[in-house]
Amino acid sequence: MRYVVGVDLGGTKTAAGVVAQDGSVLLTDQIPTLNRDGGEAILDATAAMVRSLIERAGAQGLVVDAVGVGSAGVINAAEGTVISATDAILGWTGTHITAGLTQRLGLPCAVVNDVHAHALGEAWHGAGAGASTALMVAFGTGVGGSFVVNGQPLLGQHFVGGHVGHFASPFAVHRGTALPCSCGHSGHVEAISSGPAIHAAYLREGGSAALTDTRAVFDSARAGDELALQVIAIAAAAAGQAVGGLINILDPAVVVVSGGLADAGDLWWNAMEKALRAELLAPLAAVPVVRASLGNTAAIVGAASLVFAQ
Amino acid sequence: MRYVVGVDLGGTKTAAGVVAQDGSVLLTDQIPTLNRDGGEAILDATAAMVRSLIERAGAQGLVVDAVGVGSAGVINAAEGTVISATDAILGWTGTHITAGLTQRLGLPCAVVNDVHAHALGEAWHGAGAGASTALMVAFGTGVGGSFVVNGQPLLGQHFVGGHVGHFASPFAVHRGTALPCSCGHSGHVEAISSGPAIHAAYLREGGSAALTDTRAVFDSARAGDELALQVIAIAAAAAGQAVGGLINILDPAVVVVSGGLADAGDLWWNAMEKALRAELLAPLAAVPVVRASLGNTAAIVGAASLVFAQ
Repeated sequence: MRYVVGVDLGGTKTAAGVVAQDGSVLLTDQIPTLNRDGGEAILDATAAMVRSLIERAGAQGLVVDAVGVGSAGVINAAEGTVISATDAILGWTGTHITAGLTQRLGLPCAVVNDVHAHALGEAWHGAGAGASTALMVAFGTGVGGSFVVNGQPLLGQHFVGGHVGHFASPFAVHRGTALPCSCGHSGHVEAISSGPAIHAAYLREGGSAALTDTRAVFDSARAGDELALQVIAIAAAAAGQAVGGLINILDPAVVVVSGGLADAGDLWWNAMEKALRAELLAPLAAVPVVRASLGNTAAIVGAASLVFAQ
Repeated sequence: MRYVVGVDLGGTKTAAGVVAQDGSVLLTDQIPTLNRDGGEAILDATAAMVRSLIERAGAQGLVVDAVGVGSAGVINAAEGTVISATDAILGWTGTHITAGLTQRLGLPCAVVNDVHAHALGEAWHGAGAGASTALMVAFGTGVGGSFVVNGQPLLGQHFVGGHVGHFASPFAVHRGTALPCSCGHSGHVEAISSGPAIHAAYLREGGSAALTDTRAVFDSARAGDELALQVIAIAAAAAGQAVGGLINILDPAVVVVSGGLADAGDLWWNAMEKALRAELLAPLAAVPVVRASLGNTAAIVGAASLVFAQ
């Protein structure tokens, strides 16, 4: 059995694990991402965590021979560099991730964007395992996704393929005006169906400011709050309509839905799936739509799978 | 140089040509599709036309060694059969196209859906030539398309990938009600941005019934008809918004737009492209958006390329 360290490098924390070629995660660790200290400091800290995991694996007689990374930001997977990143990680843009880690660790390294790594994990050993094509969609703080074809996420010409939250939604309108989107445009799927969008809609429609986040809106809905139920239903319908349209466009073998909203229970899921099914072309009526199954380890497993696939 | 006959089998006519490996079309022919007579009669007539083309090529010393077909209907490209077809071609469903033509002609044969063949032609030797990924979108009687990755159209699990006209458009609404779509659902891109949708919108908004088709609406717009200008602008904006969203999702290297509306001049194109650019995520701002270049021969060339690619 071959072993690889998979790294999930996000804006606030960096998690890693020793992943076996069968997809199992044997050891894990986690550190805060040094998101104010620049690329070299982040690579130093990441390499130290990876080295520690390799030593722990070695104590069990397991030899790690490579590192795979899923990183926040737009990642040039061919060159192993950060094309761009938000201020959530200062100084990350321009960092040579693969060269920097190989130099520090003496091991071959591969990298993709963290959303692509997440999709790859679910496609390889999660809810999409065995499917020739899988549409991955995540509804949480943002709305993202990836289309995985024959085990490879379609990265796109500029490595930003899978931005499934940034197309027009008829629901993303308030009193005739398109809702602003995180991308700088307006009227997009993410502007109405993300987690924060649900909280914003609740406040916009006159809901109590005592509910300070999306989780509180869900709790209030479960306690019978009609307005909370309504804004969740609209967000879920917008999500389902969007995914249904994507299915018509892509005709995937399986659809895997993840993110905080997918994990929020039937209240969101049932309304989402109903709207999704209402969009489908006749030949696609039976497409399986399933919850993601790997949870927090999806990107670690997917990052490791980059290496196993090479 | 190798030569293949490419066939574009549509609901009303079947066109074919001798295609060289460099993509040039040397000889062409066309017959009415025997769309009331059933699959075997259609294959007989198609085989006769192909045989005649092979003989004409032979007279010039060119040897044709295979046949590629782009056919109307949902086509199982792996098995060479018609999964389903509308009543536009009675008895086409269930026809074994590749086996039937090979039996009649003694040559190897390959088949895909005609929209996929069209995309393949443009990707191989048309406006998308040389691009690693190409998003093809056609706005005409309907709205269709295909995403071509490394020279291969993504056919989809049920061979219906590329239905880019059947996702929600905020424009596809009239007085608060979603416009009916050809697919049986409502509110889709095709319902507002196809050619017939432009004519329908003109009549719906009180335009003269003396204008009996979309071409007449365009002529009237060019003569200064404000309502005609308005409905074309809305349809073009809906088209551009839809394609812009698809670009965000897929991040293609090039976007190729075809169909009757793309050929209708700047009136439609400029409004379409303006709306398209307004949707794009920052890293995608410079994506090339070009008109299709092969015209009527795209599907013939694409069908032939199926064979050359094997």
